[in-house]
Amino acid sequence: MNQRADLLLTNGIVVTADQNNTIIHNGDIAVKDGKIIAIGENLDIEADKKESLNRSIIMPGLINSHTHAAMTLLRGYSDDLPLMEWLADIAPAEGSLVGGDVYAGTFLACLEMLKAGTTCFADMYFFEEEAAKAAVDAGIKIIAGEGILNFPTPSAAAPEHALEITEALCSKYKNHPLVKICVAPHSAYLLDEKYLLRSGEISMKYNIPLMIHVSETASEVAQIKEKTGKTPIRYLDSLGLLNKNLLAVHCVVMDNEEIELFRKNNVKVSHNPESNMKLASGISPVPEMLEKGICIALGTDGAASNNDLCLLSEMDTAAKLHKVNKLDPTVVSARQALRMATIDSARALGIENETGSLEIGKDADLLVLNHNLPGLNPLYSPESHIVYAASRREVGDVYVKGKKMVSQGNIVHSDTVSAIRNVNKIISKFEKKIIKTQ
Amino acid sequence: MNQRADLLLTNGIVVTADQNNTIIHNGDIAVKDGKIIAIGENLDIEADKKESLNRSIIMPGLINSHTHAAMTLLRGYSDDLPLMEWLADIAPAEGSLVGGDVYAGTFLACLEMLKAGTTCFADMYFFEEEAAKAAVDAGIKIIAGEGILNFPTPSAAAPEHALEITEALCSKYKNHPLVKICVAPHSAYLLDEKYLLRSGEISMKYNIPLMIHVSETASEVAQIKEKTGKTPIRYLDSLGLLNKNLLAVHCVVMDNEEIELFRKNNVKVSHNPESNMKLASGISPVPEMLEKGICIALGTDGAASNNDLCLLSEMDTAAKLHKVNKLDPTVVSARQALRMATIDSARALGIENETGSLEIGKDADLLVLNHNLPGLNPLYSPESHIVYAASRREVGDVYVKGKKMVSQGNIVHSDTVSAIRNVNKIISKFEKKIIKTQ
Repeated sequence: MNQRADLLLTNGIVVTADQNNTIIHNGDIAVKDGKIIAIGENLDIEADKKESLNRSIIMPGLINSHTHAAMTLLRGYSDDLPLMEWLADIAPAEGSLVGGDVYAGTFLACLEMLKAGTTCFADMYFFEEEAAKAAVDAGIKIIAGEGILNFPTPSAAAPEHALEITEALCSKYKNHPLVKICVAPHSAYLLDEKYLLRSGEISMKYNIPLMIHVSETASEVAQIKEKTGKTPIRYLDSLGLLNKNLLAVHCVVMDNEEIELFRKNNVKVSHNPESNMKLASGISPVPEMLEKGICIALGTDGAASNNDLCLLSEMDTAAKLHKVNKLDPTVVSARQALRMATIDSARALGIENETGSLEIGKDADLLVLNHNLPGLNPLYSPESHIVYAASRREVGDVYVKGKKMVSQGNIVHSDTVSAIRNVNKIISKFEKKIIKTQ
Repeated sequence: MNQRADLLLTNGIVVTADQNNTIIHNGDIAVKDGKIIAIGENLDIEADKKESLNRSIIMPGLINSHTHAAMTLLRGYSDDLPLMEWLADIAPAEGSLVGGDVYAGTFLACLEMLKAGTTCFADMYFFEEEAAKAAVDAGIKIIAGEGILNFPTPSAAAPEHALEITEALCSKYKNHPLVKICVAPHSAYLLDEKYLLRSGEISMKYNIPLMIHVSETASEVAQIKEKTGKTPIRYLDSLGLLNKNLLAVHCVVMDNEEIELFRKNNVKVSHNPESNMKLASGISPVPEMLEKGICIALGTDGAASNNDLCLLSEMDTAAKLHKVNKLDPTVVSARQALRMATIDSARALGIENETGSLEIGKDADLLVLNHNLPGLNPLYSPESHIVYAASRREVGDVYVKGKKMVSQGNIVHSDTVSAIRNVNKIISKFEKKIIKTQ
C-alpha cells in the first residue's frame, strides 16, 4: 500500500460486525482522516502513530438508537412506578428545564455513553440544538430529534414550532461531521394526526429517520384504539407512515399482522428492553421480528427509566430476556444482540454506510475492550464476551472518527467533574431533595 | 469514645442495609481489628488512619449466595443452549480438571468478584479445599461446598468420599477468619436419597447451610416426579430436609403450596436470575416469596452460565425481570434487591451476625462506589443508584474485614495478569480452541 495512515492499531481481536460477522483473531486497523483505510492481518502500511492493542477485542463503537440524553438530570428521581404515573411524577421537573439545563444533562450523558463505548446516539428531547451542541463539545455523534407534542414543551410553544425547529436543525446541521437530525413526534397518543402527517413529510423531504414511540404499553394501545378504532401501528399505517424511514420505538404490544406490516414496509424497530422491564411495560416480540428479517436496533431509553445509558448491559439483557420469555435459549444469540447494538442500529438510523461495522471506508468509530481484566478471561468467543461478560468496566479506548475520546476508560478531552458539578447546580431547583455528591 | 480506631472513613453516604434501611447522608465509619466499632455523623474518635470518602456511597460488601467460582475456566465455552445440553457440552472439560485448575479458576473468580464489590461467596464445586485456598490467598470470604453427586467427580470417587471431604473441611476450617463450609449435594436428580439424607445430617451436626439446586427447570421437576411421585420440593420435604439450614438454589418451578412449605420451614432461597434467563430455565416466583416473608438471597451462578460474577448487574436484572414478568413496576423494589445481595444473602448463609449490613460489631466488609463518575450522577436515592445505575465500573474501594482489597477499582494484593496467565495455561487442554489474550 502506498497510502500513509494517521494511526495503525495492531495485534487486536477484531470483531467487525460486517456482513459475514468476520472476526480477525490477530488483526490490524489503519485509520486516515477519521476513516478506516485498511483492516486485516499484518498490514504492511506506514503510519504516523502506531499502537498495539495487546490482544484486546476491538469492535465497532456502539450505537444507541433511542434515548432522551438530558434525562440524566432525572436519574433515580422517580422509580418503581408505571409509565403514566412515572411521567406525571417527573413532569414538573421536566417542565422547568431551560436550554442550558438540556445542554448540561446531555453533556453528562455524552460522557457516560462514551465511557461505555457508545460513539453515536439518537436523541429525542427538548432544546435539541443544545443537545447537538453538547454532543459536538463532547465529541460524540448524535441524531438529534426535537420532541414534537400537542402541548407546549420547554422549547416549543406549539407542535408547529417544534416542526419548524426540526427543519431549521436540518438546514443548520447539513453535512455536519457529528450531527444529524431526525423528526421526533413523541407518539400517536401525544400528537394529533395533522402533525404526525407533517412529521412524515419532513422525514421524506430530508430523507431522515422519523423516530416515534409506538405501542409501548397495553394502555397506550387501548387509548389509540378508543380514539381511532385502530391499534397504534395500524393507525400509523393508515396515515402512510410505515416506511423505511420509520424508527418505531418500543413496539411492546404487537400482533403478527403488525409484524408483517413492519416487514412489508421495511420499518425499523428500536428495542429498549431495560426501560420496558423497569416500567413493567412488557416484552417486545423481538424473536418473531428477527425471524421475519426486521431490522432491530438497540436503545437504552433515557437514564430516568433505565437508569444507565450502557449498551453493553442492554445487549446482555436483550439476549437473556427473550430466552427466558420464550423458554428457548437459542433465541437472540450473542451475535444477534451484538448486531442490534452496532450495524443494525446504524441501519435503523440510515447511517450504515458510515458506521456500525469495521469496514474499509467507514468512520473509525471504535471500541477497545481492555482484555487484561479478570471478567473477560479466558476467551473462547469474542461475541459471547462482548454480550454476556463485558461491562463498561472493561471499556478501554474509544474512538470517534479516529479521534481517541476515551483512554483506558477515562474521558480524554472533557472535564467530568465539572460536568457533574454543572448538573448538580441545575437540579437544585427541582422539588425533590438531592444528595450532594461534591 | 475512648477506643482508638485503626481506620476512620469520613464524609460518606452510608447505606447500612440495617433493619430500618438507615441511610446516613453524611456519615463516618470507624474500624478496629477488622470490625465496625462506630458508625454515624461526625464521629469523635481517634484513628491511626483517616480517609475521606468524598461523598461516595459506602455500603455492605456484596454477598454472592451461589456460584461455581472455578467455572470462570469455562466462561463463554458454550452458550445459547438449554441446561441439559449445556451441561453435556461442558462435561468433558470439567471432567479433566485437577486441583490446581480449580485453584486457578477460583482465584481468577475471586479477583473478578472483589473488583465487582463482592466480599463473600458461597461456592459449590470440586476440589473445594483448593477453592478455599484460592479465596484465602485472594482475601475474600468463602462458604465452600464440595459438590456431592452420584457419579465420580474430579475430586471424589464416590458420594461417600465427597461427604467425607465435607466433614474434613468442617474440621480443618473451624473458626477460620475467611472460610466457612457448607454441605453441597448437587440436586435430587443427581444424588440418591441416602446421600441427600447424609447431607442433611452433616448440615445439622455442624449447623451449616445445605446448598442444593432445586426445581431449576420443568424437565427436572418432571424427572423427579417420575422417580419419586413428588415434586423436588415435596420430595425434599418428605426427607425432612426443609429447614432453616436449607439454601434452595434456583426454585424456578414452584407452586403456591411449595412456597408455603418454604415459609413454614424457614427455608432460604438463592435467586440466580441471569443464569435462569440465559439457560431459559424460567422465572422464579420471587415476588410471591417476598410477600410471604421468605428470605431471598441473590447469586450469580457460575461464570459459564451468566457470564460474569457481578452482583451489581444481578440486582438490576432481578428488580427489572420481576417487574416485567408481573407487569407491575412496584414489585422487587430497589431496596428489596439491595437487601437480597447483602443482608438477606448473609441470612441465607447463616452469617448475618458477622456481615451483610453496616452495624457496630460486624466485620468491616465494605464497598465504596466511586461517586465522581457520570453514571452515578446526579443522586436522589442511593438505593436506586446501587441497583439501577451502578456497574462494576463505579466500584472504588473494597474492604474485607477492614483490609483494603480493591483500591480505586484495582486489586491491591494480587497480580491479576498472572492470574489470567495461569488460567490460560490450564484451558489449553480443553477441546475448544481458545483465543490467546496474552
